[in-house]
Amino acid sequence: MDISALREKHPEHWKKAAAIRVLTLDAVAAANSGHSGMPMGMADVATVLFEHHLKFDPKNPDWIDRDRFILSAGHGSMLLYSLLHLTGYEDMTIDQLKNFRQWGAKTAGHPEYGHAKGIETTTGPLGQGIANAVGFAIAEQIQRARYGKKVIDHYTYVIAGDGCLMEGVSQEAIGLAGKHELNKLIVLWDNNNITIDGTVDMADKTDQVKRFRASGWHVVECDGHDPEDIDRAITEAKAARRPSLVACKTHIALGSSAQDTSKGHGALTDPQLIADTRAAYGWEHGPFEIPADVKAAWEAIGAKGAAAHAEWQERFATLSQGRQAELTRIYAREVPKRLSAVVKALKKKVSEEQPKVATRKASEMALEVINPIMPETIGGSADLTGSNNTKTGDLGVFMPDNRKGRYIYYGIREHGMAAAMNGMVLHGGARAYGGTFMCFTDYARPSMRLAALMQIPTVFVMTHDSIGLGEDGPTHQPVEHLAISRATPNTWVFRPADAVETAEAWELALSSQSTPSVLALSRQGLPTVRTEHKNVNLTARGAYVLSPSEGKAQVVLIATGSEVAVALKAQAALQTEGIGTRVVSMPCMELFAAQDETYRRKVLGAGTVRIGIEAGVRQGWDQWLLGERARPAKSAFIGMEGFGASAPAGELFEKFGITAEAVAAKAKELL
Amino acid sequence: MDISALREKHPEHWKKAAAIRVLTLDAVAAANSGHSGMPMGMADVATVLFEHHLKFDPKNPDWIDRDRFILSAGHGSMLLYSLLHLTGYEDMTIDQLKNFRQWGAKTAGHPEYGHAKGIETTTGPLGQGIANAVGFAIAEQIQRARYGKKVIDHYTYVIAGDGCLMEGVSQEAIGLAGKHELNKLIVLWDNNNITIDGTVDMADKTDQVKRFRASGWHVVECDGHDPEDIDRAITEAKAARRPSLVACKTHIALGSSAQDTSKGHGALTDPQLIADTRAAYGWEHGPFEIPADVKAAWEAIGAKGAAAHAEWQERFATLSQGRQAELTRIYAREVPKRLSAVVKALKKKVSEEQPKVATRKASEMALEVINPIMPETIGGSADLTGSNNTKTGDLGVFMPDNRKGRYIYYGIREHGMAAAMNGMVLHGGARAYGGTFMCFTDYARPSMRLAALMQIPTVFVMTHDSIGLGEDGPTHQPVEHLAISRATPNTWVFRPADAVETAEAWELALSSQSTPSVLALSRQGLPTVRTEHKNVNLTARGAYVLSPSEGKAQVVLIATGSEVAVALKAQAALQTEGIGTRVVSMPCMELFAAQDETYRRKVLGAGTVRIGIEAGVRQGWDQWLLGERARPAKSAFIGMEGFGASAPAGELFEKFGITAEAVAAKAKELL
Repeated sequence: MDISALREKHPEHWKKAAAIRVLTLDAVAAANSGHSGMPMGMADVATVLFEHHLKFDPKNPDWIDRDRFILSAGHGSMLLYSLLHLTGYEDMTIDQLKNFRQWGAKTAGHPEYGHAKGIETTTGPLGQGIANAVGFAIAEQIQRARYGKKVIDHYTYVIAGDGCLMEGVSQEAIGLAGKHELNKLIVLWDNNNITIDGTVDMADKTDQVKRFRASGWHVVECDGHDPEDIDRAITEAKAARRPSLVACKTHIALGSSAQDTSKGHGALTDPQLIADTRAAYGWEHGPFEIPADVKAAWEAIGAKGAAAHAEWQERFATLSQGRQAELTRIYAREVPKRLSAVVKALKKKVSEEQPKVATRKASEMALEVINPIMPETIGGSADLTGSNNTKTGDLGVFMPDNRKGRYIYYGIREHGMAAAMNGMVLHGGARAYGGTFMCFTDYARPSMRLAALMQIPTVFVMTHDSIGLGEDGPTHQPVEHLAISRATPNTWVFRPADAVETAEAWELALSSQSTPSVLALSRQGLPTVRTEHKNVNLTARGAYVLSPSEGKAQVVLIATGSEVAVALKAQAALQTEGIGTRVVSMPCMELFAAQDETYRRKVLGAGTVRIGIEAGVRQGWDQWLLGERARPAKSAFIGMEGFGASAPAGELFEKFGITAEAVAAKAKELL
Repeated sequence: MDISALREKHPEHWKKAAAIRVLTLDAVAAANSGHSGMPMGMADVATVLFEHHLKFDPKNPDWIDRDRFILSAGHGSMLLYSLLHLTGYEDMTIDQLKNFRQWGAKTAGHPEYGHAKGIETTTGPLGQGIANAVGFAIAEQIQRARYGKKVIDHYTYVIAGDGCLMEGVSQEAIGLAGKHELNKLIVLWDNNNITIDGTVDMADKTDQVKRFRASGWHVVECDGHDPEDIDRAITEAKAARRPSLVACKTHIALGSSAQDTSKGHGALTDPQLIADTRAAYGWEHGPFEIPADVKAAWEAIGAKGAAAHAEWQERFATLSQGRQAELTRIYAREVPKRLSAVVKALKKKVSEEQPKVATRKASEMALEVINPIMPETIGGSADLTGSNNTKTGDLGVFMPDNRKGRYIYYGIREHGMAAAMNGMVLHGGARAYGGTFMCFTDYARPSMRLAALMQIPTVFVMTHDSIGLGEDGPTHQPVEHLAISRATPNTWVFRPADAVETAEAWELALSSQSTPSVLALSRQGLPTVRTEHKNVNLTARGAYVLSPSEGKAQVVLIATGSEVAVALKAQAALQTEGIGTRVVSMPCMELFAAQDETYRRKVLGAGTVRIGIEAGVRQGWDQWLLGERARPAKSAFIGMEGFGASAPAGELFEKFGITAEAVAAKAKELL
């Protein structure tokens, strides 16, 4: 690569881009770890994007109509941190860059959402950013349709690497974006032909241009080091009526001796290499030193957004008070005042009518009253709409000719759905929920974890939550998935027992500010167990005494979801024999664990036989069955010890011994 | 669809295909559940494949050189069951079909590997079969290169639906197959334009032909109901030098009133619909009744393979005795006699030299002695070869021009890798292992679960197993992933403490007949804790007393992996204060749980303070800390309570309080 020619042809551009490159080298050297090559390779593209295209205002980083910039290739985090610092984001001081990858710094190894303004999503696990971006772009389309383009009208830009494009989730994202003609989504592909193991062609010879076109994308190619060519390509992409891939031919670790090599992907910390690279760049300043003219040029780029933001504020002020209040509310993740009332009314109705419905159906009943008053909800399913019961009549279907639709047919793309939902929530003004079978938590896992890590309240609607699924068999029957979700920090796992608890779970999930929820819902019909209406949301306490014992409790049965009815039946049988039995419903272990000890003691009691009942593996239950003043020798668990089987659901519960009779027998054995 | 024209044009073919269709209708009706439309749509393609192309012998279903037939669209299981029954597989009686989806039947809702011969893999979770198939085809290539085409030379055929192709893992599979020019892999795409939610174009408008071509596939299209056209297309695909997609235009639920609709995807049980469809087919026989001429025609197809098998046996007999024995051994999943000796020798060397190495490096040391004596191992990594330490010098790299290579550069495709590894193991004669970061267990989960469900000994090498990964931060630091793997039935989760335990874990993983293994390995260097050589494989017992207490044990520390050294240091500190402390190393909870109670009691003791130490979440530990004669009030866990952070590893262990000092302090607090 003829660096001097690049420098001479576009000297002002070169200096700005070089600032990113040397800050990267300096920060990686200071940390003695990190990834140098990607920011060095993509600095030109990023500079052109920020200088000529990206709509942003560092002084108002939460401006809801800003363009979103997503670094899907998150290992190149120094690209993002450099840009935020240079353009004047207050969070991103030079000291943050000096503390790259150190304890307490905002500059984590990979960009972490919430650490600093301008980080739109957490990336690093590859493919997530590009899949999030599809959700950002859908949220933008829906809000533009609802609120008008004078207040919502922005692009979503993504920088993605070869790793992002090799991950399967990228195909799900590409397919979804192509179908929906998300024309304001622009992916800038860092086409450098290098991965950690070597050149890309050691593992892949996919023609990405043809691949994207096959899914309905507009594709434009450019020289990723020529600012005029980059500008031309981005300009063309912005004008396209379809999502665009800008294939940027670049050189990883540009200008260093590690250019175009796998070594260049990683941490370039050799002092000589760094010195030589600085010389090649014509950069004569010390580490972390940005000359005033370059910093001023970058700050001028950052300052350009102030006027656009001010104009936007004027336009925003012309909205009706109601619209302004609604936008403000939904971006604050606040719920409408009416939510509590409609949930209470539904609970009351259910307690009175006592329907026997599957909790997936109960979920639909809850959504039928919630969706009409929460315009920020965006529902969907990974091709199981009729099974997940996620679609309500008022939502409308999101399609290229119906941008107001709030229901997404995600196709058979559980992972892409989960990532897109995260993107909608991250975009702001949206609460996304989407359904699949609980067993396919496995497919969505990477994005479910990131929702928890990012502290965003995405809602995962997981129906067919046990062997109660029946004949489809063990491939479709979750047994370990409750444990998996519960093992994940900052995740609420709700397994409601009936339509009342389901409504309560939805209220909590949709009121959450910073915790994602998993709703584990039954396929099979369940009786109403909350037959006495209470205004208070009992699910909020995680567990509660559903049915006290007659007389002194000798046995405490703790159950979730479909097994609460099993516990009640066992209770009745035991009590006919004079054995006082309490039933505790535990729809959310995490919320129960967060209660004070006094409450937990009150619910669980002490000195009794204690039996946990759940059609899943035991892992996660021992804290309640062996701890919390339990008597281990007097505790038992009735659930699954291995995978399920293919047979009618009722027969499976019998064969696997998850029955009231088995519970009562176990209780008597332990007494 | 003009059914009568189809019947008239190819009457003999029609009857054979109709047999599949009516058996499907009958079985689904009997079960009152299932998926009718796919077998009805693909019966013609399957008939042509089995009649004219597939090399198989129902009387020798384990013939190692048979063509493999994989039903990736596993919900259409009645297609497979019908074919196995009709062609004369002894397992698949008519009674099995009558008991479709019932308890104890071989005919589960989705095909379950191990239930019946001819079921090559478990499918149903979409995309898995096509991704498995890539592994089948790689294993065939490697074995053909090693043993010669006179004994190994067969095709892998896949039937995949739109769901399979929408799942992201299919892209990983397609990319991998295209790169490796797996010309004996042929995917028959059931192009019926219908998914559960409606027509495919509601969620996707990908041009699959262009998509596959973009990744280097040969594509041929055909009318999926015209036997001559199907035959032409398959013949062309077999001759191609690249993997082939045969795009078969079909009608789901052909000939029924539900044809070409979403309804047709599911269970068609309406008696009138079934009667009308039978009439349209010209099928005048009762339920489950196959006329003798049709059955005879199908059995003749099945019988054709006997001659081919006999000829193959003759060719096999010309192999050297050594080669014959090796093939027999590897297909029996038996280990070479020398395995035990080389592992013992390595252990002895390590115990003597006491290196301080990361267990990922120790894993490489083990593989260096194992790979040369186990030609059935096939290694690889999802673009982290240098980090996972999975490549040994002798393996060679699998490439189109080096089919003997036993190391796969999987690219950034954790899920595709895991599925392909399962395929290799299922093919037979292969033990596959592959590496990624432990955190990306999330990406590989669907296939890891299926390995457990299928009872196959795939080995997942998961390095960088804790916050010890350091600066890359919480996106790359597993905290819940040990719990996730342990929650999964039939999975051995090894977290070795040093190079000795790592060698032992590898011996167990590679000796396993029916259980997959997860090796959780450290990034950071760890001291040798097994400083006294023992021939016996202590890891096989799951946990053992690594260091007994001086005098009576007042404290028992139980630790895994990198935290065993922490426990030993805490032990030393406590014992200088006269507090007798035992250290238990617990490299595999599952194997320990399988020991008899006497052994478990001996290891864990009773009446002491008990502390578990592991840099992960607590879930899964309570059984050891609260149960097994523990005193809950005297137990504690030192580990992670939430996600990690980005900082140097040593600092993270300090900040999160996973240190010998913290352990000793906690022990004293509890005494």
